[in-house]
Amino acid sequence: MTAENSLLIPESTLLQYSVNMLSRVGVPADEAELVASNLIEADLRGVASHGIVRLPIYIKRILDGGTNPTPKVNIVRQTRTTAVVDGDNGLGHFVGVKAMEIAIEKAAEGDVSFVAVRNSNHFGTAAYYAEMAARKGMIGFSFTIGAINHMAPWGGAEAMLGNNPFAIAFPSREPFPVVLDMACSVAARGKIIVAAKEGKPIPSDWATGPDGLPTTDAAEALKGFVIPVGGPKGYALTLTVGLLSTMLSGAAFGRDVGELYEKTADAQNSGHLFGVLPVSSFDDLESYLDRMDRAIADLRNAKKATGVDRIYMPGEREYLALIKHRENGVPIGPALARELAELGRKHDVDFEVSL
Amino acid sequence: MTAENSLLIPESTLLQYSVNMLSRVGVPADEAELVASNLIEADLRGVASHGIVRLPIYIKRILDGGTNPTPKVNIVRQTRTTAVVDGDNGLGHFVGVKAMEIAIEKAAEGDVSFVAVRNSNHFGTAAYYAEMAARKGMIGFSFTIGAINHMAPWGGAEAMLGNNPFAIAFPSREPFPVVLDMACSVAARGKIIVAAKEGKPIPSDWATGPDGLPTTDAAEALKGFVIPVGGPKGYALTLTVGLLSTMLSGAAFGRDVGELYEKTADAQNSGHLFGVLPVSSFDDLESYLDRMDRAIADLRNAKKATGVDRIYMPGEREYLALIKHRENGVPIGPALARELAELGRKHDVDFEVSL
Repeated sequence: MTAENSLLIPESTLLQYSVNMLSRVGVPADEAELVASNLIEADLRGVASHGIVRLPIYIKRILDGGTNPTPKVNIVRQTRTTAVVDGDNGLGHFVGVKAMEIAIEKAAEGDVSFVAVRNSNHFGTAAYYAEMAARKGMIGFSFTIGAINHMAPWGGAEAMLGNNPFAIAFPSREPFPVVLDMACSVAARGKIIVAAKEGKPIPSDWATGPDGLPTTDAAEALKGFVIPVGGPKGYALTLTVGLLSTMLSGAAFGRDVGELYEKTADAQNSGHLFGVLPVSSFDDLESYLDRMDRAIADLRNAKKATGVDRIYMPGEREYLALIKHRENGVPIGPALARELAELGRKHDVDFEVSL
Repeated sequence: MTAENSLLIPESTLLQYSVNMLSRVGVPADEAELVASNLIEADLRGVASHGIVRLPIYIKRILDGGTNPTPKVNIVRQTRTTAVVDGDNGLGHFVGVKAMEIAIEKAAEGDVSFVAVRNSNHFGTAAYYAEMAARKGMIGFSFTIGAINHMAPWGGAEAMLGNNPFAIAFPSREPFPVVLDMACSVAARGKIIVAAKEGKPIPSDWATGPDGLPTTDAAEALKGFVIPVGGPKGYALTLTVGLLSTMLSGAAFGRDVGELYEKTADAQNSGHLFGVLPVSSFDDLESYLDRMDRAIADLRNAKKATGVDRIYMPGEREYLALIKHRENGVPIGPALARELAELGRKHDVDFEVSL
C-alpha cells in the first residue's frame, strides 16, 4: 500500500467519503460517523486490510439486505457484570462499540465485566475495542469470529474455522496502549492471493492444498486452507477464540458461518466477546503504570539482534503509522481509489481525489 | 517418555511418593496432597514435562530456602469480583488452586471474576486451573509468567521474556473440558536440548543463536533464544501473557524474573492471573452445551486430510492419555526413576519400584 503510485489521501477526505456513502444507503448520521472513524483508524494505523478497502462490501451487503443499516442494538440478558447483546444484524463496528461501552459501563464501580454479542457483522480490527477499555484505565479483551472460514481443524481438509482475531490492550504512560492484535494464521490469505497472481511459490508453512497437506503452489493453496501459527497450537487458539466469540451468545460457528463476500443478502450472525479488567480494582493505577514503564523500558533496552536498531512494543508501529498518516495522508492504491470513486459516482457521493 | 525401557508406574505410587517427599521437607499434609495430585495429573495427561520430573527441583528449592513450604496464602486487596492474592512464596500448585478457588467463589452468584497472584512459584500446567472452572460450568482462564526467561523481544538478543503459558477451558458434555493450553514458542526448549545431546541440527524456525539470528545448530541455540510462534505474533502473545500475569499484582517480570533451577535460595515472585465466566449468566447452560455439542461434532466430522483418521479437540488427547495411564500406569524413564529413588533414599522415602 506504500507503492510509489499510491495516493496520499487526507484522513478527513476518507472520513467524509465513508460517512457520506454510509448515509446514502440508509445508515443514520451518528452511526455512520462512528463506523467511519473506526474504519479509517485502521487505515491510519497501517492496517489497510481492515480499513476503507472493506467499505464497498459493507455497502453492498446493506444494499443487498444482508446487513441492517438501522439496527436496534439491545441487551437480551444481563447480570450486574455480564450482558448478552443482540446486534440486530447491524454493522459490526457499531455493534462492537456499543457492546464494549456496556462492558466499560458495567465496570464503572470496579467490577470486571464481559459482554457477549450475537447477530453482528465483520467488526474491523479487534484492537479498536480493546483500546477503548485501555483508554479508561482498564485491560481490554476483544475476541471475534472470522467472517469467512479459511482454516481446517488440525488434521482436517474442510474449511470449518475462521482465522479468528483477538486483541488484548494494556493502559500505559506511552502515547499508545500496548496492544496485541493477531489472527491465528502464519500468513494472511491476502499474501497468498498476491503470490498466485504473480505465479510465485509460497513458503511451505503458509497453506495446505484442498487435501489438507502443505503446498508451495499458491493457486493450490487458494483452493485449500491457511495454516495456523505453531500448527496444532494455532488450531487450538483459533478454535478457542471462535468458541469465546460465539458459544455464550449463540452466534454462528463452524458450518454455520456465512461468507462475507458471496452471501451478501444473508445475515452472518457474527459473534464477539468483550471484557474489561479495571486496573484500579487490583492496584493503584500509578503503581501499575510504574511497573508498565519499567517493563517497557527493559524490553526496549534489551540487547538488539544483529542488524536491528530498535525494539517495538506491540501497538507501537501502528501508533507511529497513525502519526505519520494523520500528517501526510493515508496511502491508497490506484485500483482502490478508482473503485471508491466509481462507487461514489454510482451513489452520487464525491471522492475528492484527482486520479 | 514411552520408550521401550520406560517403567509403567501406578498413579497411586507416584502420588504417595510425592506426598511423602513433600511432607518430609515440611509441607503440611493437605497442601502436599493437593500439590501431588496437581503434579501427577500432568503425568497422567501425558504432559510429562510438567509432572513428577519437576518434583526434585521443588524439593531442592524448599530445602535451599527459595520456596516456603508453609505459606499463608492471603488476599491483599479485593472487590466483589476481583482479588489480588499474595502466595507467600508457596508452591505454585497450591497457591494457584487457592486463587482459582477464590475466583470461582466470587462468581458463585453469576458474576465474572478475575484474581491476580504475586509471590507464587512455578504452578505446573495452566490447564489444571482453567479446568477447575470448566468443571463448575464456567469458562476458565489461566495465565502465568514462565519461571525462566528463554525468549528475546522481537528483534532482541537478550533473554527478557518467558515462554509464557496460558490455558482457556470450556465446559462441555464430553468427558473432558475443551481446553487450550499452550506456551508461545514454536518448539519446547527440551527438544533443542535433546538435539544438542545427539549432535543433530534443528529446524531453522526453532531458535536463534546468542546474536538473535536463526540457527540450525542446536548447541548455539541453547546459548540463544527460542523463537515464538508466528514470529512477531508470538512475541506479542508471550509479552501479553506475561503482562497479564504480573502487572496487576506486582509479580516479577522481565529482568526481575529469577531462574527456577539456578537461584534455588531466592524467591521467584511468580505471578498468575485466573478468570472465570459463569456460562449461566450468559445463557441457559443446556443451550450452551447444545451449541458446544454441535461445534465439536462439526469439527470431528470435517473431511480429513490425506492420511488422517481422526480430528481431536484441544484437551482430548490429554484426556485419552489420562484414561490409559490411569489404567496401565504412567511411563517413567529409567533415568528419572533412578533420580526419584535416589532422592527418596536421601530423605528416607520409599519409591516402590523395582529398577
